[in-house]
Amino acid sequence: MRIFGIDPGSERTGYGCVETDGRAARLVTCGIISALASDGFPERLERIHRELSALLIACAPDCVAIESLFHAVNARSALKLGHARGVAMLAAVEFGCPVVEYTPAAIKRAVVGYGRAEKHQVQQMIKLLLGLAHPPSPHDAADALAVAICHLHSIPPGGLKAVPTNETGKPRSWRQYRPPTHG
Amino acid sequence: MRIFGIDPGSERTGYGCVETDGRAARLVTCGIISALASDGFPERLERIHRELSALLIACAPDCVAIESLFHAVNARSALKLGHARGVAMLAAVEFGCPVVEYTPAAIKRAVVGYGRAEKHQVQQMIKLLLGLAHPPSPHDAADALAVAICHLHSIPPGGLKAVPTNETGKPRSWRQYRPPTHG
Repeated sequence: MRIFGIDPGSERTGYGCVETDGRAARLVTCGIISALASDGFPERLERIHRELSALLIACAPDCVAIESLFHAVNARSALKLGHARGVAMLAAVEFGCPVVEYTPAAIKRAVVGYGRAEKHQVQQMIKLLLGLAHPPSPHDAADALAVAICHLHSIPPGGLKAVPTNETGKPRSWRQYRPPTHG
Repeated sequence: MRIFGIDPGSERTGYGCVETDGRAARLVTCGIISALASDGFPERLERIHRELSALLIACAPDCVAIESLFHAVNARSALKLGHARGVAMLAAVEFGCPVVEYTPAAIKRAVVGYGRAEKHQVQQMIKLLLGLAHPPSPHDAADALAVAICHLHSIPPGGLKAVPTNETGKPRSWRQYRPPTHG
């Protein structure tokens, strides 16, 4: 099973894909999509959407996981972040993936075991969990891997292959999506 | 010249297209894209993007005008609105249109002559300006027509055909876009 994590932002969008055979998690790819200084805001959105769409096709994940609504920011940054999240979600839905969301605290708890962990602790734990030589960098890529690993941890061992599909065989949407139950 | 106005929202996105020969403005089309109750949030974004993309191809506007960042909302609504605006902007950039933005006050000043005009005043003025039998309804469609008319009014008579293009002949992005000057 493959999970594609996204940490959206209008300046830098982190992405990270992990896969598992039910025992260990393995890194597929990770990185960031950076805005060019010459890009206007609409062009940045277009770049995020275009590059994420290409990465989803290349990685063929079973599910996309995104950090959920971030409440502590002001209205102006929330609006800007919303634009980037919107085109990231669009890329996932167009690819035909279920989209799941986790709060920053839930992601840190799942990866580090502590909801208020620091960024470098998240990077170190991802290095350990994926058996990497170095912590993933920059932190946007590590954050994207963290949300993917968080979703992986939320799936019970028996449910690993059970990505839910609707009658047409397409993956269900996030609203309909429920993590498969044991047995 | 044709201008396509968008009033984005995750529940309802208004759109309106107007054209002018340099004297009078004429309605091309207007309406709303409504979310289905059964749609999850990502599916709503996908619907907005898909329907706007089809409308842009059908209307073939020279420019897309969107109401600019709305500051008075809280972070949560701003984030939600941002998602809808993001996919609307993406549709415009993918179509190859310049995207221009106007504040709500600038739109009301351009249409009604008063920055704090009420919604029904905007609807009545659009009826007059476009020579319609009835005010456009619902107000999301009227608001989309208002931002299109606002951009039309910002272009001086001599500059009507002068949608700026870059070296490749494609319209410039909003950042580069400046309304053409007189003469």
